Amino acid sequence: MGGDHAPAAPVAGALDAVRGDPGIVVDLVGRRADLEAEVASQGGAPANLKVVHADEVVEMADSPVEALRRRPEASILKALQRLAGGESDAFVSAGSTGAVVAASMMVLGRLPGVRRPGIAVPVPARNTHGVCLLIDAGANPNCRPHHLFQYGVMGANYYAKIFGEENPRVALLSIGEEEGKGNTLTRDAAKILRKSPIRFTGNVEGRDLFGGACEVAVTDGFVGNIILKTSEGAAEMVFGMFAEALASRSPEVLQKVMGQIDYAEWGGAPLLGVNGVVVIAHGRSDRRAIANAIRVAARAVNQQLNDTIVRGLSRAGAGAGP
Amino acid sequence: MGGDHAPAAPVAGALDAVRGDPGIVVDLVGRRADLEAEVASQGGAPANLKVVHADEVVEMADSPVEALRRRPEASILKALQRLAGGESDAFVSAGSTGAVVAASMMVLGRLPGVRRPGIAVPVPARNTHGVCLLIDAGANPNCRPHHLFQYGVMGANYYAKIFGEENPRVALLSIGEEEGKGNTLTRDAAKILRKSPIRFTGNVEGRDLFGGACEVAVTDGFVGNIILKTSEGAAEMVFGMFAEALASRSPEVLQKVMGQIDYAEWGGAPLLGVNGVVVIAHGRSDRRAIANAIRVAARAVNQQLNDTIVRGLSRAGAGAGP
Repeated sequence: MGGDHAPAAPVAGALDAVRGDPGIVVDLVGRRADLEAEVASQGGAPANLKVVHADEVVEMADSPVEALRRRPEASILKALQRLAGGESDAFVSAGSTGAVVAASMMVLGRLPGVRRPGIAVPVPARNTHGVCLLIDAGANPNCRPHHLFQYGVMGANYYAKIFGEENPRVALLSIGEEEGKGNTLTRDAAKILRKSPIRFTGNVEGRDLFGGACEVAVTDGFVGNIILKTSEGAAEMVFGMFAEALASRSPEVLQKVMGQIDYAEWGGAPLLGVNGVVVIAHGRSDRRAIANAIRVAARAVNQQLNDTIVRGLSRAGAGAGP
Repeated sequence: MGGDHAPAAPVAGALDAVRGDPGIVVDLVGRRADLEAEVASQGGAPANLKVVHADEVVEMADSPVEALRRRPEASILKALQRLAGGESDAFVSAGSTGAVVAASMMVLGRLPGVRRPGIAVPVPARNTHGVCLLIDAGANPNCRPHHLFQYGVMGANYYAKIFGEENPRVALLSIGEEEGKGNTLTRDAAKILRKSPIRFTGNVEGRDLFGGACEVAVTDGFVGNIILKTSEGAAEMVFGMFAEALASRSPEVLQKVMGQIDYAEWGGAPLLGVNGVVVIAHGRSDRRAIANAIRVAARAVNQQLNDTIVRGLSRAGAGAGP
C-alpha cells in the first residue's frame, strides 16, 4: 500500500518479479479488496503471488511512532509480524521510511551487537561495479562515532556479499580529504575506523561519491538523507534544463540519460542491522523500482546476508561499544 | 594568488572589474613579480588597479591555522591587515577557504554579538530573484542552535539588502518538512527561529533548495559544505551524461545549460559576521567568477552591509546567547 503510486506500482512490480522468477514468492499485504482488484486488472495472480489482508495503512504525513501505535492493523506491522513469525523471509516497502524503520526496530529488533540500523542506498558511481553504497541514508539522524563505525562494517560486508568485491573501500563523508578535516563526529569516527580491519580509505567529499572514490560511503542519517535529496534535486534541475533546451529534438538523448540516472535501476535500499531482511524502496518507485527492490530482498535472503553481517561485526570487533 | 587558476584568472577578473567600473579600485596582493608580469601580459594596469607585494602564499594543502602561523607574510594576511587598517574596504579571495575564514577571524575579529561567522553561498533557485542563499557553507562545522539562529538573521538581512526583497523567507535545512523532523541541532534551532521576528517558514528538504521554497536556507557548515559539493557533483555527472549522449551535436544546448548552472554567474560568497567585508570565490573560479566576486564585495561596501547586519541582529534579539 506504500509509495506515491500505490497500489498500482507495487502490484505491477510484484507481478513482474514473480513472473520473472518462479523462485520468488510475494505476499501483497494490504486492503484485500483494493489489492485483489488491482491484481485482477493487471492480468491476475500467478501461483507465487497472494494477497494478505491488513485493515489499515500508515500515511506519509503521519508521525511514524504515533501512527504505528494508533494503527495496530497497519500493513507495515502486519507484514513485519509475518516476517518475525517465519511466514516470510523479507519485507519490501515503498511506504513512509520513518514508519518502516520504527516498525522494523519494534517488531524485528536489532541483530546481535548492532546499536542502530542504517539504510544503505546504492548510488551510481564510476567504480568497478558502478555503485557506491551510502549508509546511513536516514534511519539515524543523531549518530555517535561507534554507529558510523558499525555502518562501515555492515556496508563493507553487504557490498562484498552482493557485488562479490572482496575488499571494498570504505570512506567517511566529510568536508575535505585531509585527515582531521570534518566535524567532531567524523573526526572521532575516523579514529575508530582507522584502527579497524576493514579497508578504510579516509575522508571523501560529496562530489567524490559519484566519482568512484569508494564502494561504501559512511555518514550519519541526517547528512545522508540530505545528500540523497540534494543530489536528486540537482540532477533533476540539470535534466530539466536540458529537456527545455533540447525541446522536442533528440528525445532519444533524454531517454538515454534518464535511464542512467534513474533510481529505478537500483530500486531497493536494505535496512542493515535489523534482525530480518528489510528493503526500502523510494516513495516515487515505479513498477521497475519495485521489482528491483524485491530482487534485492531475494538476493539478501539467498545469500544469508544477516549471518554475514553478524560475523563481520564480530570479526571487526564492532559489536560492543558506546 | 589563490585558486586553481591563479594568478591568471584573478588578474583577468580584477582587470575586467576595474575596467568595467571606474568606481572600483583593486589592489592585487601577492608576489609582485608574478602579478606584474601577469598584468602586463593582459594589457597592463589601468589607474584603478595596483599590485601590493606579499612574500608568501598559503597553499591549499596546508592546515589553515598552521600555515598562517608559519607564514606571517602570506598574501591572505597582508590583504586582511590592509583591510583592518583602513587601506581597503573589502577582501576577495579564491584561495583556501579554511585559511580565509581563520585569517579573517584572527585579523578582523567578529561583528558585535556574532558567535560564529558563516559563509553565505548563492545557489540557483526558482524563486523571485533566482537565488537561494545557503548559510553556512563551511566556516563552522560544529554548530550550536544559536549559531543557526544568527545565520538565519544575518542571511535574511543580507538577502534583503542585496536583492531588495523586503521579507525573505528563511528556512532550516532538514530531513522532512514537518515540524519536529530533523536532528537534535535543527530541532532546537527551529524552536529559537520560530520565536524570532524574521520570516521563518520551517524546514525544507535538500531538493527544495533549488525549487525556490525559500530565499535563505540555514544549515551547519558541515552539512552546507557537503550539500554544495554533492550538488556540484550530481550536476556535473548529469551534464557529463548529456555531453556524451549528444556527442558533437547541439553544442549550443550544452553551452546554454552550462551558462545556467555555472557558479561563475554568482561568483562570490560573503563571509557574514566578520568585522569587514570578505568575499570568498570558488577555488575553480575563472575570470568571470572573480569579476563577479569583486562586484559582490563592492556592493556590500556601498550598501553598508555590516551596519545592516549588526542592526538586524540587535533587532532580532540574536546578539547574545550561548
